[in-house]
Parts: sequence; structure tokens; C-alpha cells
Amino acid sequence: MKLEERAIEEKICPLEFAVNTISGKWKIPIVWRINEGEKRPSEMLRGIAKVDRRVLNQQLKELERDGILYKKNFNELPPRVEYSLTPLGEKLVSVLWKLNDWGKLLIAQ
Amino acid sequence: MKLEERAIEEKICPLEFAVNTISGKWKIPIVWRINEGEKRPSEMLRGIAKVDRRVLNQQLKELERDGILYKKNFNELPPRVEYSLTPLGEKLVSVLWKLNDWGKLLIAQ
Repeated sequence: MKLEERAIEEKICPLEFAVNTISGKWKIPIVWRINEGEKRPSEMLRGIAKVDRRVLNQQLKELERDGILYKKNFNELPPRVEYSLTPLGEKLVSVLWKLNDWGKLLIAQ
Repeated sequence: MKLEERAIEEKICPLEFAVNTISGKWKIPIVWRINEGEKRPSEMLRGIAKVDRRVLNQQLKELERDGILYKKNFNELPPRVEYSLTPLGEKLVSVLWKLNDWGKLLIAQ
């Protein structure tokens, strides 16, 4: 089912939908790191403590399905895959920056 | 331990801290509803499907501890309690609006 149909059927507001979409384990760190230039899963595995390859791949797959990441397959041996942010993913990053600013206020209080 | 000490000790960035703080079950719907004028726990129980009183009270307590909500006790019988957003809570709401806008793009794509 498409996102829009799911949203209507489940009568949920855009905020709830946004939160559900990004609240999967490691999704925010993944988006954040891709924004900082880490394109390959092997780089993310080094950067994100405690995430294993299987979980990382699942999260990347969901982020790609939801239109947040774009996956590029290079026809090379050994196989090479790189992820980048779609325009929707870039807009998400700008919201995450605002949440980061809010987090600073939260910590400083 | 204070929030700031926890943040330093656990070496986490403000974004991660913000996400951890608001990702407790029902916290975003609670903040959203208080912003829309529902001040009393009994109103929230009617408004948020599936949340039970014990869970709601726990979430309200944590949001108060983290400086997002302000709790006012009226010296009345039967006892009356009302919650409102602190300035930090109001700033959170403005970020949630941005996330809501992003959710619209996500649904529409």
C-alpha cells in the first residue's frame, strides 16, 4: 500500500507519520551520517557503534523505500553501493538541525 | 544526574539527546494535545487512543522532569491537576510543526 493510502486508512496526522518513518532504530544516525558524507554501508558500520550489518541493511532499505535515500549501484567488482539523500531526505536533515538546536537548549537548561 | 552531565558522560550529540527525550511512548501526542489546549490528564485519556492512565502519568512525569511541561496542582477537592508547556516545550512544538510539514511531503510523494 502506498504511503498516502496508509495515512488515510490509519487516520494519522503527518506528524505521526513522520515520527513513525524516522523512529526505526538507527535511522536518524544513518541519515545524519549520509548527510555528513558517509556514503557506503561499510563506513556507516564503523561510524555507528553497535549497529550490525543486517540491521543496517534493513534500515537503509526502508529509508530508500520511503523516498529519503537514493541508492546507487556501481557495476564494479567487488560490488560498490553508495547512498545519498533525496530532496525529501535533505528537507528532513534541515528539520533534524532544528531538533538538534532544541536539544542544545534541553541540555543547557 | 543532570541532563548536561549525562550528555557529556554518554558523549551524545544534542540531536540524539532530543530524540531520546521525546521518543518515549505517547510523548509527542501528549505535547501536541497540551499545545491544543487539553490540560487535564482525563482529557488526554479520552483523546489518545490506547494509552492507559499509568503509562500516561509516567510520561507526564518524565516530560515535567525534563523541563518540557509545567504541572499545576490546584488545592481543590476532588484534586485537580493541569499541565502546560514551558518555554522549552513551546520551542519543541515549533520544531514538531516543521516535522509535521515534512510529514506532508512524505505522504504526498
